[in-house]
Amino acid sequence: MSSSAIQQACERIKGHVHNTPVLSSSAINEMAGCRLFFKCENFQRMGAFKMRGATNAILCLPESARLKGVVTHSSGNMAQAVALSARQLGIPAYIVMPTNAPKVKKQAVASYGGKITEVEPTIEARAAAAQKIVDETGAYFLHPSNDLQVIEGQGTAAAELLDTHPGLDFVVAPVGGGGLLAGTALACQAKAPNCKVFGAEPSEADDAYRSLESGRIELNETVNTIADGLRTQLGDINFPIIQKYVDRILRVDEDEIVEAMRLMWERMKIVVEPSSAVALAAVLRNKHLFADKNIGIIVSGGNVDLTQLPF
Amino acid sequence: MSSSAIQQACERIKGHVHNTPVLSSSAINEMAGCRLFFKCENFQRMGAFKMRGATNAILCLPESARLKGVVTHSSGNMAQAVALSARQLGIPAYIVMPTNAPKVKKQAVASYGGKITEVEPTIEARAAAAQKIVDETGAYFLHPSNDLQVIEGQGTAAAELLDTHPGLDFVVAPVGGGGLLAGTALACQAKAPNCKVFGAEPSEADDAYRSLESGRIELNETVNTIADGLRTQLGDINFPIIQKYVDRILRVDEDEIVEAMRLMWERMKIVVEPSSAVALAAVLRNKHLFADKNIGIIVSGGNVDLTQLPF
Repeated sequence: MSSSAIQQACERIKGHVHNTPVLSSSAINEMAGCRLFFKCENFQRMGAFKMRGATNAILCLPESARLKGVVTHSSGNMAQAVALSARQLGIPAYIVMPTNAPKVKKQAVASYGGKITEVEPTIEARAAAAQKIVDETGAYFLHPSNDLQVIEGQGTAAAELLDTHPGLDFVVAPVGGGGLLAGTALACQAKAPNCKVFGAEPSEADDAYRSLESGRIELNETVNTIADGLRTQLGDINFPIIQKYVDRILRVDEDEIVEAMRLMWERMKIVVEPSSAVALAAVLRNKHLFADKNIGIIVSGGNVDLTQLPF
Repeated sequence: MSSSAIQQACERIKGHVHNTPVLSSSAINEMAGCRLFFKCENFQRMGAFKMRGATNAILCLPESARLKGVVTHSSGNMAQAVALSARQLGIPAYIVMPTNAPKVKKQAVASYGGKITEVEPTIEARAAAAQKIVDETGAYFLHPSNDLQVIEGQGTAAAELLDTHPGLDFVVAPVGGGGLLAGTALACQAKAPNCKVFGAEPSEADDAYRSLESGRIELNETVNTIADGLRTQLGDINFPIIQKYVDRILRVDEDEIVEAMRLMWERMKIVVEPSSAVALAAVLRNKHLFADKNIGIIVSGGNVDLTQLPF
């Protein structure tokens, strides 16, 4: 967790993942009353930042362990990220997916060479199936967000952003499982200790906000949010990092998420998923906190179903 | 029309327009069997390449003429481009728009300070209204595509692309009114004479293809294409340039345009208008022409109505 861990992760993943572009929009800056710098992980390989954590974690395995392959369970971006990074690194990837995962996501995982095991859509069934694969193959289980090497890998997005934009006053990242936010916080701590880190999350799934309030990991009873990537809960590895290095969590309502998403599509001409718009929504809702400052936004990804848009 | 004209246009507009990024997609390269470099004018100010031509033409006017302002008639991107570039340069912009132009486009023109005159949606009414403004104000009439300074301005997109990617074998640009394609051809002629230039157009509005065949400007009888920016006809200034420097025009069907557009949204995560997808569609339809080559694609713009998508 030292400054060099993030820097080492940056060196490790170089050439395996894209150093994504940073975009700005004068129209959105004018609306927000500050200067926003969007780190576009929607342009990352397989369309999301998860590629960073998966690649870093796999590269951190000793070679003998790595050759046995990796396992994850996911219905979304982590499944694709593990499958693609494993293929690139020449090792097997075992992906446990719920039977109700979108067909297009299963096809993407299969196209990357992932070996799919379908199970009932419960967290218990998923975990049991993954454990069975670990037992049988000796493959390494990669948690999507609660694994230090995954967290450090996700932090490389903010590290790259701070390399090109060292004068940021704030970095805002969405928080779901907590891996991206914890990694972002570690990167800022290492590279720009005066830069404040804020998490952004839907009011409809505000477990991270409540966890920081109560000092222990809180769960969501319902997750009625369009930001499907942010319905998950924090873990015991990322939560202490978030407690220590994240200044606060900002909550936003569903209509604010959709409006921020529309702005990014219409004004920036980029395809982003609802989770990515949560950070911009938090800035637009809390303009007084950011007036005239330089703010980095981690755009988490762009994997959306174009036939199911909210506008 | 010498090499220096395009270079001079590049110098002239620098600081007034964005030098837009060039993106690639390994997934699309794999599908196409060649290497594609997309010059992303959807990220241009006001969302389209038209900003280049308008800015160059206005800056070419002698100061006394410039101060009287500029006039255009357009229901689309040129209206916004002239309004925004005129505002930036501190001169009046008179925009003649048909009564049936989308409200959102009228609002954009108004937000840029353009003085709107609404007329019946016929080409005669539009031309007459523009002429009346010229007579009354002394403002300069800017044609969206058939004006040498506008053409040279549009060519700066290809010039910038060739500056960063000098080894291109082909550049493909969509052709509607002909300004972008003629400017692209001039830029390639000036900067990379061995780089072939292809135009791409919908089969449903293939006037440019037929014009090159017959040797005179042909009209479209119907324009049943989703590529609304490509429904216009060539002009007597851009046609000779296209005849001399464009190698051929490739035609594509409507379903191919929609499929290429979907690919750019899904794989590249960028919002592009249907006209922008026509060039990629032409490459995908004619893979044999481009096998293993380096191809530049001019992505014309990204101004679409998100509630009216074809997928």
